[in-house]
Amino acid sequence: MSDATGATEAKGTDTTGREGNAAYGKKPFKRSRSHFADRITADGRDGWPVEAGRYRLVVSRACPWASRALVSRRLLGLEGALSLAIADPIQDERSWRFTLDPDDRDPVLGIRFLSEAYDARETEYPGGVSVPAIVDVPSGKLVTNDYQRITLDFATEWTALHRPGAPDLYPEPLRDEIDEVMEGIYLDVNNGVYRAGFAAKQSDYERAYRDVFRRLDLVSERLAGQRYLVGDTITDADIRLFTTLVRFDAVYHGHFKCNRNKLTEDPVLQAYVKDLYQTPGFGDTVDFDHIKRHYYKVHLGVNPTGIVPLGPDLSGWLTPHHREELGGRPFGDGTPPGPVPADEEVPEAGRP
Amino acid sequence: MSDATGATEAKGTDTTGREGNAAYGKKPFKRSRSHFADRITADGRDGWPVEAGRYRLVVSRACPWASRALVSRRLLGLEGALSLAIADPIQDERSWRFTLDPDDRDPVLGIRFLSEAYDARETEYPGGVSVPAIVDVPSGKLVTNDYQRITLDFATEWTALHRPGAPDLYPEPLRDEIDEVMEGIYLDVNNGVYRAGFAAKQSDYERAYRDVFRRLDLVSERLAGQRYLVGDTITDADIRLFTTLVRFDAVYHGHFKCNRNKLTEDPVLQAYVKDLYQTPGFGDTVDFDHIKRHYYKVHLGVNPTGIVPLGPDLSGWLTPHHREELGGRPFGDGTPPGPVPADEEVPEAGRP
Repeated sequence: MSDATGATEAKGTDTTGREGNAAYGKKPFKRSRSHFADRITADGRDGWPVEAGRYRLVVSRACPWASRALVSRRLLGLEGALSLAIADPIQDERSWRFTLDPDDRDPVLGIRFLSEAYDARETEYPGGVSVPAIVDVPSGKLVTNDYQRITLDFATEWTALHRPGAPDLYPEPLRDEIDEVMEGIYLDVNNGVYRAGFAAKQSDYERAYRDVFRRLDLVSERLAGQRYLVGDTITDADIRLFTTLVRFDAVYHGHFKCNRNKLTEDPVLQAYVKDLYQTPGFGDTVDFDHIKRHYYKVHLGVNPTGIVPLGPDLSGWLTPHHREELGGRPFGDGTPPGPVPADEEVPEAGRP
Repeated sequence: MSDATGATEAKGTDTTGREGNAAYGKKPFKRSRSHFADRITADGRDGWPVEAGRYRLVVSRACPWASRALVSRRLLGLEGALSLAIADPIQDERSWRFTLDPDDRDPVLGIRFLSEAYDARETEYPGGVSVPAIVDVPSGKLVTNDYQRITLDFATEWTALHRPGAPDLYPEPLRDEIDEVMEGIYLDVNNGVYRAGFAAKQSDYERAYRDVFRRLDLVSERLAGQRYLVGDTITDADIRLFTTLVRFDAVYHGHFKCNRNKLTEDPVLQAYVKDLYQTPGFGDTVDFDHIKRHYYKVHLGVNPTGIVPLGPDLSGWLTPHHREELGGRPFGDGTPPGPVPADEEVPEAGRP
């Protein structure tokens, strides 16, 4: 399961995490697998062929898992082929909702809650509603909420719809290394911050905290001498690390108690994430306002007052990072993506 | 009122703040005045003459207000004349308690709860129990819990009992300036962090946050070119700023949402507070373990899980600060205090 607040028991029932850890008793936080794991492929073998204009990507800009798909879609130039619905960062008891849209309704799917697409796919589905989600527009049915798979399929199955100059985000010769790097980062960092933040027991928290920083130290060491995680170009591994790191000081440091240090105190990781932030397709998907309001207002089991901190100071995101001195070819043989479509621009309030 | 968690309604009823802001409804946090404001003076005009061995200072090492008295007592060498009781950092429903002592009882006063000294002074006192408190040992009665006055009287009334070489912490010619500096720091910083942390409304929090950082910026500017706040020696103003700043990254930054930046991100304030920390009489009174456990385990209205963060990394407290390059004479014509009495040493767990 994969909404930004997703917590779950081992059996696959998940929740929107509205109550934070208070709802989960004393068990360690466990993230469930995605229940809907159909794939949209070039050959359509699951019944869902890649097709321009057929599907709609539903995200919250607050959610790191959904934000992977946002970045990947931008880098590959899929905006025209795969339209975008942005949920309100604040869920209610019916979970993700389209209250940012006129009439509180997604204009393409015509629904008010993402759960309606889940219901269209499977009645009485007992699990939670998560983003990213890809919905088949003609039938209104959810196709997939498989946050681990979606970006890989964007990179490898949606190629016919890529823009000219799209980078190869999952290059064949590097896949084993990318998979290995992503696995460690997933367990210790992407999900580690949630295990820390949603821990109900001191010992669970401490284990997660140590995992987070042990892995970040390894990653920092790796990135000291090379611009990107694997090879010399941006890959899906960078996207996955980015969506956690960009949230680190804003929400994981304080709200989730991952507070050995801020990223601003790690010169390598700080420069790495700034470099990506300033790369077209990354920072232009990030809404710090959505991020902060979601975490601080939805997890009332962690932050009962719902007060949203004014900090941290975001001005550093736009200052020089000097990572280009390490070389690297961000887009390999390709080119950077063009400007953000006007109707997808992050509002002023969400930018540094 | 002056326990570390002290919150109160305007009328002077205070609480131990166990429930954090949840207990205070929607009113902005207000710190009450000390109810017991008798003074211990050289001439004994309130009935309490300065006298070696007669009084006992009760503190929590968690509490910034009580820690002022701890620092001042060390700098002035009052340890032999005024004995010390250290309360458990975790209050229970009867407030501060002596559960760190054998038999859970203060060995000198013979009481289990500080409230017993309050009761001995005034029956049915409706207010809260706060530290610092000075208790008259023969009668077992509370004399004063006036956190704003106690250190000034240590500096000016207890002079007959000062050690040789004790500094003048409240020098006559500088008192107006010291008072003015302390007033702004009190409102915006010492108490400002509490107003931010205990705010129940977003607007109250935001006002407090802005006060905190506006004042810290002014103080940082002031301290860029001079080693101490007023004059060129340590004064009571530095003590009062220190006891808040030393807690800043450990508890106020995350727990109280004063998170524009950490002190580690302000080179001037960071060096200033490290300089003091490394000065005998300051850092040797600080117990980071007591501080963190108190704030995170007692304010369950702010941190319902009671989980205590492992961070921040404290190793920076002992590295060079280079403030001696600004000149200044820490103890003026006096000398640094001697070593900490063996039975008052901060345990390993509380040190960087």
